[in-house]
Amino acid sequence: MNSSVQLLGYGAALLTTCSFYPQAIKTLRTNETRGISLRMYLLFTLGITGWGVYGYLNRDWPVFAANLVTFPASAAILERKLQAQWALRRQRQQQGKQG
Amino acid sequence: MNSSVQLLGYGAALLTTCSFYPQAIKTLRTNETRGISLRMYLLFTLGITGWGVYGYLNRDWPVFAANLVTFPASAAILERKLQAQWALRRQRQQQGKQG
Repeated sequence: MNSSVQLLGYGAALLTTCSFYPQAIKTLRTNETRGISLRMYLLFTLGITGWGVYGYLNRDWPVFAANLVTFPASAAILERKLQAQWALRRQRQQQGKQG
Repeated sequence: MNSSVQLLGYGAALLTTCSFYPQAIKTLRTNETRGISLRMYLLFTLGITGWGVYGYLNRDWPVFAANLVTFPASAAILERKLQAQWALRRQRQQQGKQG
């Protein structure tokens, strides 16, 4: 493989792997999750868990490492979104009891 | 490679590739982009463009296809976030003129 093509691959991997960190930082700082899709983070977090296991079972360490790096960011966003959804549900149940 | 491990890989690929669609649908429907990180979608959209070019140059069609599928969803979210940021900037400039 051409070394500049290989460099492109590493650059792309770095970008997609790290891109979840600015989102995680923003979500943890602001707790603003209304625009965040719960389904996206359920599917994505499950998906990278699958990729991580796949990389581990194949002893494919770049695949394992890339998904290991992304996991905490994706899981943190999912956790905040779930917390917000649960809080909303409790609030609605409370309003139902009062109404 | 064990066929069940291969199946795990395909499942993981399907999950991570498709996960951006629920987010894109939500963002296009609600236009709620406050919780969305501009940096994430700049980095991610650039990253999958890089992956797509990498797949194309290597004639690696699974890599090319996976990133081609994710691109419209990621680009749509980025576009909405950029529009919202620009609208906010115009509004602030307007307020600056009035103040």
